[in-house]
Amino acid sequence: MQDSESLLSSLRLNMPLFEEMQSFTGKKYEEMILNQANRPASMSYFDHAVLESERARIGEIIEAREHGAKMIGTFCIYVPDEIVYAASAIPVALCGGTSLSVPYAERKFPRDICPLIKSTLGRAFSRTCPYAPLEDMGVGETTCDAKKKTWDILSQKSRFHILELPQKKNGRDAGLWREEVREFRDAVENLTGNKVTSEKLGDSIRLMNRKRKLLLELNEFRKLPLPPISGRDALVVMQVALNDERERFCNRLEALVNEIHSRAGNEISQFPEGTVRVLVTGCPSVMGNWKLHSIIETSGAAVVCDESCTGTRYFERMVDENAKTAEDMIDAIADRYFKINCSCFTPNNERIEHVVELAKEYKADVVIQYVLHYCHTYAIEAMRITEALKTAGIPSMVIETDYSDEDEGQLRTRIEALLERVKN
Amino acid sequence: MQDSESLLSSLRLNMPLFEEMQSFTGKKYEEMILNQANRPASMSYFDHAVLESERARIGEIIEAREHGAKMIGTFCIYVPDEIVYAASAIPVALCGGTSLSVPYAERKFPRDICPLIKSTLGRAFSRTCPYAPLEDMGVGETTCDAKKKTWDILSQKSRFHILELPQKKNGRDAGLWREEVREFRDAVENLTGNKVTSEKLGDSIRLMNRKRKLLLELNEFRKLPLPPISGRDALVVMQVALNDERERFCNRLEALVNEIHSRAGNEISQFPEGTVRVLVTGCPSVMGNWKLHSIIETSGAAVVCDESCTGTRYFERMVDENAKTAEDMIDAIADRYFKINCSCFTPNNERIEHVVELAKEYKADVVIQYVLHYCHTYAIEAMRITEALKTAGIPSMVIETDYSDEDEGQLRTRIEALLERVKN
Repeated sequence: MQDSESLLSSLRLNMPLFEEMQSFTGKKYEEMILNQANRPASMSYFDHAVLESERARIGEIIEAREHGAKMIGTFCIYVPDEIVYAASAIPVALCGGTSLSVPYAERKFPRDICPLIKSTLGRAFSRTCPYAPLEDMGVGETTCDAKKKTWDILSQKSRFHILELPQKKNGRDAGLWREEVREFRDAVENLTGNKVTSEKLGDSIRLMNRKRKLLLELNEFRKLPLPPISGRDALVVMQVALNDERERFCNRLEALVNEIHSRAGNEISQFPEGTVRVLVTGCPSVMGNWKLHSIIETSGAAVVCDESCTGTRYFERMVDENAKTAEDMIDAIADRYFKINCSCFTPNNERIEHVVELAKEYKADVVIQYVLHYCHTYAIEAMRITEALKTAGIPSMVIETDYSDEDEGQLRTRIEALLERVKN
Repeated sequence: MQDSESLLSSLRLNMPLFEEMQSFTGKKYEEMILNQANRPASMSYFDHAVLESERARIGEIIEAREHGAKMIGTFCIYVPDEIVYAASAIPVALCGGTSLSVPYAERKFPRDICPLIKSTLGRAFSRTCPYAPLEDMGVGETTCDAKKKTWDILSQKSRFHILELPQKKNGRDAGLWREEVREFRDAVENLTGNKVTSEKLGDSIRLMNRKRKLLLELNEFRKLPLPPISGRDALVVMQVALNDERERFCNRLEALVNEIHSRAGNEISQFPEGTVRVLVTGCPSVMGNWKLHSIIETSGAAVVCDESCTGTRYFERMVDENAKTAEDMIDAIADRYFKINCSCFTPNNERIEHVVELAKEYKADVVIQYVLHYCHTYAIEAMRITEALKTAGIPSMVIETDYSDEDEGQLRTRIEALLERVKN
């Protein structure tokens, strides 16, 4: 394998800016993640995966592409990785978590769209995303207005497939979604020239279920009175899950789960007894974004559960493994993904009830709703969540923010006041 | 009929605030609409309809309800009025166009949603919308994130039906939409207790088609070198169309069309020869909102076409009158509405091409894209429209604004500079 510098130079990135972003992210990671005391030793793999996600991992993808594999860029956990893997392609989550690229998007796109989209676009526009030049096809979905319309623009310039996620949850919508997933399968077969057979699909269903089960197992430990893993470390694992090589990831995750198991037995935790337990719900925190979790945990609380796309929504519910034919497997996959509770649905009672259930299961003392600026669906749904939590007697707060550091002090003050109130 | 004051008092409005809003709107109407020189005499009916839309019109609705009719509140031109009328119910467009009610929405809802939604909600929350207490059912749709999620909240408090508009335009989506329209028919039958028969549906299809044809006819005159009606007056007609009594409206519109016909013959126009011709495209300007059209026309240009929900999207394309059974009629209705080119679709090439076509048909010298703050779909689609217009050699500008007066000076400066550039 080539060394990482020459690999990167083959991608024609804006190297000075790329280096600046890398060092910015590295510094943040050190301050927010590595600085924690008493972390599980097995986190070192995930630390390495974060810091090398745009170097060593890129090398692997370049090599796989040289052997004929296609890379598929995704922006949402509704895209069924099972299908991508069954066609021997590589799915990579391209959502941006850095504030540094935001201005590059704002030069071309409206400013009042969410930082996640702007960060993602900004990296592509500023030629600092090493994955972008490797993408053989992008897959967009219709989960929000800003993303949906962004695909219109991106699909003018490069190969793009759009998966329509319907907006209600009834049988008619579930049927449309199955057909959309089928069409996605066709698009992936077309791109790769590989047939998505029942055998390959069966394998990838089992592999993805294994990944989900391990993540679920890890998260179960967060229910303990003394959580043996911090919310920040659990978040890092989730972020790595979205674009690491799947088998290696599962093996390393298994090692982490074993270590966490033994830490739990020995009551080893990064938190003292009586630490306020926080459930975070709402928008995802993707790679590069550790802001909220870091503020919460350096304010003396523990994040014990994430109801988000970088949390429970990603690993809850397995794909039914009983299907025999490829068509039945596609339906089983579609049905599993259709049950993810994104705020894009109307009505969305399932999510509202589930947040309350999770708060109880994970014994959260308080719920913080995380809403990225200009994300209409989570911002408005927050009102119903607040009400449901109030009825259940669980204190909560809505934090609306972006990727900048500017409001950190203000957020810290608000969060500390909330924690103080809960402790009393 | 009772006098309007006692009618209004029966609705338990916040009368001082209601009066303040009425007088504010009345003053704006005088400054922006009535002040125009050389208007068609037949506009007096529409002036009256605007100024009485919340008094005399309310009286009519109260009376109809006393005789058993139901009032259905709508927020979008995708809601098929044919079905509402066929059940002897009254559809009323409830979208708010006043800035005065916006703060009342911002106290409860996120601030960064569009002024149209905030104005609408604010009127209900501040008890200044006289239609709200008369609404027997609301009908929401899924055209944008903010509206879609707003229905979740409103449907907790009152009877509400949600029509899912799919997000792509293929056959699968068209099929889902037909079923949604069918379900809406069932909901309206349920509410009213009236069966939507083929006879009633046939009548209402013909009546709505008549309305559309008359509006189309009126707008055809705007293609003339000397438009015999101003853009502001044409907009007022559209605003009245959305909640006036349908038969009377058609009769009065017919009289206006006749007058416009004769003005055209005599080359009577509010504009001197060589006036710069503007096509406005994008978000709607609903009752109470004459801001952009007024700035454009008092800057020496003429608005000759509106590609918006208060423009061509409302009256283009007829419902096929050949269907015989009620079920076939429902399909014909669904198919007509499904062809409206809202920016909520992906991809949406039809709208992009249509804007260019309309600009040519109406001989627009320039296109102004009107985007309400935080409207992601029009804001992002504006990029493709700008590009398509550029390719066609038509100058254009994107105006992003809300309902406040604050940016009026700035908008005027930008628009004047654009017009100056076009003239040279």
